Amino acid sequence: MKQVELMVRPRWLIPVEPHDTVLEEHALVVDGGRIVDLLPADFAAQQYQAAEVIELPDHALLPGLVNAHTHAAMSLLRGLADDLPLMRWLQEHIWPAEGAHVSEEFCEQGTQLACAEMIRGGITCFNDMYFFPQITARVAAHAGMRAMVGLIVLDFPTVWAQNADEYIHKGVEVHDQLRNEALIRTCFAPHAPYSVSDAPLQKIRALANELNLPIHMHLHETADEVAGSLEQHGQRPWARISGLGLPGPDLMAVHMTQLDDSEIAACAAAGTHVLHCPESNLKLASGFCPVAKLLAAGVNVALGTDGAASNNDLDLLGEMRSAALLAKGVSGDATAVSAAQALEMATINGARALGMDDQIGSLLPGKSADFMALRLNDVSTQPLYNAISQVVYAAHRGLVSDVFVAGKALLRGGELQTMDEAQVLAQAAAWRARIAA
Amino acid sequence: MKQVELMVRPRWLIPVEPHDTVLEEHALVVDGGRIVDLLPADFAAQQYQAAEVIELPDHALLPGLVNAHTHAAMSLLRGLADDLPLMRWLQEHIWPAEGAHVSEEFCEQGTQLACAEMIRGGITCFNDMYFFPQITARVAAHAGMRAMVGLIVLDFPTVWAQNADEYIHKGVEVHDQLRNEALIRTCFAPHAPYSVSDAPLQKIRALANELNLPIHMHLHETADEVAGSLEQHGQRPWARISGLGLPGPDLMAVHMTQLDDSEIAACAAAGTHVLHCPESNLKLASGFCPVAKLLAAGVNVALGTDGAASNNDLDLLGEMRSAALLAKGVSGDATAVSAAQALEMATINGARALGMDDQIGSLLPGKSADFMALRLNDVSTQPLYNAISQVVYAAHRGLVSDVFVAGKALLRGGELQTMDEAQVLAQAAAWRARIAA
Repeated sequence: MKQVELMVRPRWLIPVEPHDTVLEEHALVVDGGRIVDLLPADFAAQQYQAAEVIELPDHALLPGLVNAHTHAAMSLLRGLADDLPLMRWLQEHIWPAEGAHVSEEFCEQGTQLACAEMIRGGITCFNDMYFFPQITARVAAHAGMRAMVGLIVLDFPTVWAQNADEYIHKGVEVHDQLRNEALIRTCFAPHAPYSVSDAPLQKIRALANELNLPIHMHLHETADEVAGSLEQHGQRPWARISGLGLPGPDLMAVHMTQLDDSEIAACAAAGTHVLHCPESNLKLASGFCPVAKLLAAGVNVALGTDGAASNNDLDLLGEMRSAALLAKGVSGDATAVSAAQALEMATINGARALGMDDQIGSLLPGKSADFMALRLNDVSTQPLYNAISQVVYAAHRGLVSDVFVAGKALLRGGELQTMDEAQVLAQAAAWRARIAA
Repeated sequence: MKQVELMVRPRWLIPVEPHDTVLEEHALVVDGGRIVDLLPADFAAQQYQAAEVIELPDHALLPGLVNAHTHAAMSLLRGLADDLPLMRWLQEHIWPAEGAHVSEEFCEQGTQLACAEMIRGGITCFNDMYFFPQITARVAAHAGMRAMVGLIVLDFPTVWAQNADEYIHKGVEVHDQLRNEALIRTCFAPHAPYSVSDAPLQKIRALANELNLPIHMHLHETADEVAGSLEQHGQRPWARISGLGLPGPDLMAVHMTQLDDSEIAACAAAGTHVLHCPESNLKLASGFCPVAKLLAAGVNVALGTDGAASNNDLDLLGEMRSAALLAKGVSGDATAVSAAQALEMATINGARALGMDDQIGSLLPGKSADFMALRLNDVSTQPLYNAISQVVYAAHRGLVSDVFVAGKALLRGGELQTMDEAQVLAQAAAWRARIAA
């Protein structure tokens, strides 16, 4: 008998790799924060003596969800302004509110709220883009979540930096500070083609190569963005950033709703990842990402919630359902993006986009013990013919019961383990009073 | 002091009428199953002595949701077959499963499962179309839910009837049986243009006039349906049923994804209601209902979940969010279908479509006390700038706490009051074993 830290025995085990697989009567064995085995429950009982056994007789066990694109701290602006197009929403509401309120404290408390919501929804890892990325990293690490924090770059001054050079300089400093944080990685995050000019983009490409950091950027979000680029640069954004050397397997392109066939082929050839945010694209009427075509071309498509200010939630389970449904509607093909593919987009594809698929995104021995459980003996998830279908098309995040990262519990039986929820809520209420005033 | 049965004191009260209104520090006063008053909480305390006071200090109180189109008993087939186009889904999976399994017992236990799920999701009234409508009615009434049961008509034989005449005959009998059920109404439910021929449709129109019953019918669901009608009848379905006299303010047309501008205008002129099922349309790749255009033309658009076999849930809160998001995406206009409009589609518009807006759909004195409460002090619904935005764009059905119909509690503090949930789940599991075998 091998001594191990933890054994989890769910009713259904969905490892994501191999594709479209549901194991019954299996156990997940964890030691030293890693998955050491995944085997039939009766063999597990013969081979391993676990210090802790978690019985989940009515639950599905899945890899933790990877939220591949968000702006966590913006949760404090959730629902501040709705039902507006992107540029009016940004220019008349979000940017003024940010100008008046964003600070280290805002980022700290906004990210705390976001982490609490994400953990409750089964998300174990998020890819963020916002000011004060070192604060985002600190909050995530303190909550026990895995995060990639974007080193944001803009041309214009904000509370975080005055010009592109200063953003880049401060970003590299943050990267250096965070080098040894086990759960945290960094990437460059030039905001968008319309907000970052050529020189900083070239500098970012050079530094990304030197430091071996990925690049995370909003791209082809709206038809207006494409039209503006044609007017200002005589090129569509993809062509322009291609000229600057940005596309590659280390580029994460967010949104990508306006793509012609040659751009889809170029994206596939470059190995660039698409971070798809279906609900944000719908809410801001940004256009439809051609997900079925991207997948057919071999592009890795991951899923993000975007920030809560534009969505208005950080519910990747819901985003998974929206992605599967919308891809069928947009392609006119009900077989597009199956439940199993949608689940991959929310797990292993996200891990791949972040360059972390050796560590997370599926339940394979050797990977980190990042997983979550959903209770499926609910009237909304019964009868159960196929556990993956049930998770994607019927379950809601109120059914998420347990969340672990690197073998450590963040949620047990629906209770947060690493965060003071009452404090998080009190902080949010205080910000509401300040911002609404 | 007037003696009354019940006073409810929520943090936010959203009456739906008047439009886009959120009342704070107000109380809803209920007596004899009806709303008798709605007034500031301090005045309420001076004027009314209530036998029961329900304090909901963290909750929004709303009219009960109206699920304007479903096939409740089909919940037993939830997730049996996914990611397939409508006709393959129907012909290769659903119809064979129905042929093998549908019975009175199937309808009873399937509807029980559906009612439990709907109550848990804040739905107080549903408009159903399925076999054995008297069973559906009995289960709904027993659960304390309001329902309109469709008297289904098809050309072909099923377990319920052999031919159109027999469907109609049995339907009229069911209508007679249910005349005195307080919570139940009936309507004619010819299944679709491709499954019911001209003679029964004319007979239904005549009987509907005679008995003063509305008509509930799938219409213009897919491009294939329109093409098939052109081939068989030389007319699009709307033109054909117009020739048969069906359109009118008593017609509820479900789906309506394939509409040209003249059909939208004709629908508005007829006063015909559109029952929009956004998630079903997406999942089956049926096409996009032009909701923004329909609303602009003055058509009453209500919301339905469709059956759980094609959706795969009976979550009208989710459907409301999907409807608001999708309308923006489809129209390319982020101002299309605001949060307040989406909430109307799920409440008062549904009530109007069913001809029940004198009784339900908004919290106005004189109407029936059909309401539901959602807890909004959750990390997913804070901070709160606008309660309607939060309900539509951020809340999930796990936050529904209380549901009342005609002043009677169906859900209190998240617990079902009128149904045996363990029994409902055991029944669903038994059907799963039978159907999967």
